[in-house]
Amino acid sequence: MNEKFNFSAVQAPLPYEVTQELVKSISQGSPDAPSPLEFDYTTEKFGALIRHAEETLRTLLHIPVNYRVLFMAGGEDAQFSAVPLNLLSDHKCADYVVTGVFSKEAYLEGKKYGDMNIAASSAGASPAFSSVPEMSRSDFRPDADYVHICYNNPVYGTSYRTVPETGSIPLVADMSSCFLSAPVNVSDFGLIYAAAGQNYGISGVTTVIVRDDLVGNAADITPSVLNYETMSDKQSVFRAPDTFALTVADAVFTHILNEGGLEEMKRRNESKVSLIYDYLDSQVYYTATVDKKYRSSTHVVFVTGNSAMDERFLQAAEEAGLYGLRGHSAVGGIRASLYNSMPYEGAEALIEFMKKFAMQNPKLDF
Amino acid sequence: MNEKFNFSAVQAPLPYEVTQELVKSISQGSPDAPSPLEFDYTTEKFGALIRHAEETLRTLLHIPVNYRVLFMAGGEDAQFSAVPLNLLSDHKCADYVVTGVFSKEAYLEGKKYGDMNIAASSAGASPAFSSVPEMSRSDFRPDADYVHICYNNPVYGTSYRTVPETGSIPLVADMSSCFLSAPVNVSDFGLIYAAAGQNYGISGVTTVIVRDDLVGNAADITPSVLNYETMSDKQSVFRAPDTFALTVADAVFTHILNEGGLEEMKRRNESKVSLIYDYLDSQVYYTATVDKKYRSSTHVVFVTGNSAMDERFLQAAEEAGLYGLRGHSAVGGIRASLYNSMPYEGAEALIEFMKKFAMQNPKLDF
Repeated sequence: MNEKFNFSAVQAPLPYEVTQELVKSISQGSPDAPSPLEFDYTTEKFGALIRHAEETLRTLLHIPVNYRVLFMAGGEDAQFSAVPLNLLSDHKCADYVVTGVFSKEAYLEGKKYGDMNIAASSAGASPAFSSVPEMSRSDFRPDADYVHICYNNPVYGTSYRTVPETGSIPLVADMSSCFLSAPVNVSDFGLIYAAAGQNYGISGVTTVIVRDDLVGNAADITPSVLNYETMSDKQSVFRAPDTFALTVADAVFTHILNEGGLEEMKRRNESKVSLIYDYLDSQVYYTATVDKKYRSSTHVVFVTGNSAMDERFLQAAEEAGLYGLRGHSAVGGIRASLYNSMPYEGAEALIEFMKKFAMQNPKLDF
Repeated sequence: MNEKFNFSAVQAPLPYEVTQELVKSISQGSPDAPSPLEFDYTTEKFGALIRHAEETLRTLLHIPVNYRVLFMAGGEDAQFSAVPLNLLSDHKCADYVVTGVFSKEAYLEGKKYGDMNIAASSAGASPAFSSVPEMSRSDFRPDADYVHICYNNPVYGTSYRTVPETGSIPLVADMSSCFLSAPVNVSDFGLIYAAAGQNYGISGVTTVIVRDDLVGNAADITPSVLNYETMSDKQSVFRAPDTFALTVADAVFTHILNEGGLEEMKRRNESKVSLIYDYLDSQVYYTATVDKKYRSSTHVVFVTGNSAMDERFLQAAEEAGLYGLRGHSAVGGIRASLYNSMPYEGAEALIEFMKKFAMQNPKLDF
């Protein structure tokens, strides 16, 4: 095994072609044609870049005309505050579904601004958060201003497989860890947000896709940089926007389009994840921790059943050129994150290594 | 004149050596040693980078131990909200000094959160904002929670030359456009903030230097990403921080230290700005618009007295390799921004061009 692969959940590698292009344009910067590291956000050229990024994203996701696209600062944490600040009405109540670390933190931050309720949780699953709750419309308070979910849970390796039914209550989804990995029916949601760093771009920018009627009702206390209406009016250009992270995001959107769009991303991602799950389900050495019905298409979590053996696995994997496989500290074990930029060969190399490791490390020896 | 120079006020060129270093490390990224574009913010390596950036900044500015250093997202606009959200006490009142575009917007944003007062303004100067108000302690309300100023005004080319006396009222200064251009006595301020993009780094990160006693009193409604105490507890790492902008900031802090620190930056900047002002004060073709007592050490604004001639100047300057000299739309005319990365030769080239232009374009012809 000669090639190396990075399975990290936090920051995926950029597509090779995008990195090459960035290096070239950074190297070629000059006083009359500044590089993307020296982008003046007040120029028409930067306005054109933002519009291009938006248009490309609209094409990729078939975003309906009654949805706005905003590029904001501050990662997921900023949206944990922005959502209640912008979407709560006068009676200030919203429902949260807790399926892991991020959805819980969104709930805790939301509580600063209103009467927040945990409508459902998979904390009681065994192991904890190894599934996603089944819900019907009656699980939500009829007067909730929104229902908040985290669509894919990178820590536990779970995901919704169908969009929960919330009737007329706007559904808000944190899609940071699965954004652009497959097509999404945007109309199913009132609002989608996704911090960059996994399937698109580098951390520093967060994409918000929000239905028109949910814009313009922000609380008076909303900071301008978190106000969807203000950001929409300013076409996402406050002082000073993350010009380079936006440049990278635009480049990755374009790259995905050129590679065949989201149907093609879905096909590739499913083939990688199936390869690994098919193997996991066919043997007894490793155990997949997630209920089959709720498996993420991006994150595969498994254990050997012995934490010392897991450690040995992680060390041997690095020696074999497979990096970033350590499970989240809340879960332990092993986690393979298969973002868009992970080639099929990465999944193959992992399986090959898993087979070899299982053969060379019989559990009885341990 | 063969060399080209960029005098843009918005985003200064990065030091050449820093750009070269970044290109090298981006090019060398690999699955086992991800490049700065693929930085996992949960790693110890990133924690070490943040600590290094902080330590270097502490050395540069001799930051006292009772001040914290935070790296936050969202540019100046985010701080326009964060300052009142964190610093207002129960009676919620603060004073603002308005000396231009940014200080006015800080005041307007602040009004969302309390009883804000314009303690002084240079709007009535002729031309407007061509000076900075002279103030004494009695100009501020004794019960103000803070006084907010914008230390250097890039739009008008003015700057405070001495720190205003506010007694026991904490002085808050937006230093975005002059940060690290010269030494600062941090103890004169309760809080200093500076968005990156001019004298350090690329846009996306904002440095906040705040005295201990001003941390921990945030209003309950403060979003976590704008809460100084939360950011301090998290050592500036929320989900997800702007890893690349922080990498660049750290590289520029280090570069400044290696070049001789802030005394050396001050010496270089004064020599550039003096060269231009000495010329401006010695002739009658061009007029400097700013009162001598309040001239910025970074931004030099001047006019020919005829807006069509200003246009001709800007066009001819670009043809001669001098870019980004257009004055801000609120002022018009010509503006040379002389950030740390502008070499002395840039100021010399500008003077040479100004002399030639004045000779070739007698005003009587126009």
